[in-house]
Amino acid sequence: MSKLAVKAEADVIEGVYLCSALDLPDLFGAAVEAAPGLKLYRPEDVPDPSRIRFALVWRPAPDAFEAYPNIALVQVIAAGVDGVLRNPSLPERAVVTRVHDDEQAAIMAGFAAWHVVWHHRRMGNYLAAQEAGTWDRTTIKTLRPPSQVTVGVLGYGLMGQAIATTVASMGFAVHAATRTGGDSGDGITRVAGPDAVQQVAARSDILINVLPLTDATRDILNADLFARMPEGAVLIQLGRGQHLVEDDLLAALDSGRIGGASLDVFHTEPLPGDHPFWTHPKVIVTPHEASVTSPKAVSDTLVRSVQEIERGQRPTAAVDKTTGY
Amino acid sequence: MSKLAVKAEADVIEGVYLCSALDLPDLFGAAVEAAPGLKLYRPEDVPDPSRIRFALVWRPAPDAFEAYPNIALVQVIAAGVDGVLRNPSLPERAVVTRVHDDEQAAIMAGFAAWHVVWHHRRMGNYLAAQEAGTWDRTTIKTLRPPSQVTVGVLGYGLMGQAIATTVASMGFAVHAATRTGGDSGDGITRVAGPDAVQQVAARSDILINVLPLTDATRDILNADLFARMPEGAVLIQLGRGQHLVEDDLLAALDSGRIGGASLDVFHTEPLPGDHPFWTHPKVIVTPHEASVTSPKAVSDTLVRSVQEIERGQRPTAAVDKTTGY
Repeated sequence: MSKLAVKAEADVIEGVYLCSALDLPDLFGAAVEAAPGLKLYRPEDVPDPSRIRFALVWRPAPDAFEAYPNIALVQVIAAGVDGVLRNPSLPERAVVTRVHDDEQAAIMAGFAAWHVVWHHRRMGNYLAAQEAGTWDRTTIKTLRPPSQVTVGVLGYGLMGQAIATTVASMGFAVHAATRTGGDSGDGITRVAGPDAVQQVAARSDILINVLPLTDATRDILNADLFARMPEGAVLIQLGRGQHLVEDDLLAALDSGRIGGASLDVFHTEPLPGDHPFWTHPKVIVTPHEASVTSPKAVSDTLVRSVQEIERGQRPTAAVDKTTGY
Repeated sequence: MSKLAVKAEADVIEGVYLCSALDLPDLFGAAVEAAPGLKLYRPEDVPDPSRIRFALVWRPAPDAFEAYPNIALVQVIAAGVDGVLRNPSLPERAVVTRVHDDEQAAIMAGFAAWHVVWHHRRMGNYLAAQEAGTWDRTTIKTLRPPSQVTVGVLGYGLMGQAIATTVASMGFAVHAATRTGGDSGDGITRVAGPDAVQQVAARSDILINVLPLTDATRDILNADLFARMPEGAVLIQLGRGQHLVEDDLLAALDSGRIGGASLDVFHTEPLPGDHPFWTHPKVIVTPHEASVTSPKAVSDTLVRSVQEIERGQRPTAAVDKTTGY
């Protein structure tokens, strides 16, 4: 009996929302229910757990997958899959997919660009001058031309490429650490190899992190890396909280090695009220809002991935469980 | 006798700095003096005014050109030439050139992008939340996807094109008002024709002005234009102070028609201390520092233009005195 015949018999392919942190049906229900051929349940409403073929997930509980013996596909709602890959109940056979959303990448690029310009142009001085009612034309005189400012991008997937393109269009010298290397024809210098992160950091006046979180990248933003960077360099941290050794950054800020930081992700979120980042004069804190996936992108990726799985294909959005991204 | 022979006899081509506002020799002397074949004097040091063939200028005094009967080239240090073209002593025969500086355009693009993101993402809310020590994840929930936000660019020269490219790379729908029109292949919709400015404004959630100042564009940012724009639209004004009817903007801000404004140029600069823009909660004031020309770009353009003039060619950087840009 062909897979198509199975599908025709079953009429719809059934899935389940698994999330401990957000109301996924509220966020994505409308978009997903518009997709023909799929039916998603909240866990408490699943009629027959053995018929569940896929899950739409974000921060699933440790035992979230246990009740569903036939899950073949686990679709994460965003780009970061580290938490799901470490989930102890994730079935060995399940393919994990993530969302590749060009609009999410574009939003991320705009957010990163804003922080690059904030630090490069010292935009905070302008806000303070306006507060004081002072017409102060001294900032531009000391502006370092962007062609002489190296912006490093750690991670060169969908996010890193979008960021690199936007930052390069603003005239900066962009160097990107990438697993695959490749040519540099579009004004972006790509650096590959096992020490690509260290090499890029060493030349970066402004360093933007959008690496995936894996065993190889955990704690990678640490005192050793900061010590390689130019005096007064800036860190823009948009990856995962676990990339950064927070005490090392505080020490580097206080010594002047790191001249400023924009931080969107943290070890503990929400960032605890007494954390020194909140009031550090060189730090901008944002609440893990650098970007957002659109419900349509989540729905489109889910539908495509389910179709690919049902046809016996490996989903194009599948994550490599070995590398972790 | 050929021009080359004249040039060889004279050894160097002589020019003069003419400026009422800046110390041009201090800013550009080092770059210009590195150029072979040129000699620039301060007015008080000119040995023979009849030998002066060119001037490097910024805000020249009304009678600044009178003493130099043989000026053939007037090189402005930046992109805006409106003041020089209106100068009563500017010789009819003199060609006016301006600086086309890709780096200046890139700096402008970064500055514009910063303000676009500031308004789109309401970045001020993040700064205020940090000030209050509040982890507030509500901003992203109401974020309008950039693909659904139209950013209008008024003026599509070197500056406008650089801005449009960067803003489009951040996912926004970019519409540019341009004299020449052209295709829309790179994700930017170009609008041409006599009412291009009005058409672009009417669809712009965020409107960026980098028009040249001419009789046709003076006061173009006025109550009539604001009335065509979407309710709550944002104005980013990086052109010339005389483009904007300041009282009309204040009224539009107070009525809510215009939801916010970033202003870098003003009718009177420095902006007077009692001007309402300083303290308006919806306005960001910066002190005419959106971008800056590099001494090298000024020097390169000057050398090239002098060579072209001496060869009897029209300089590639020449301004059309009829259109004013």
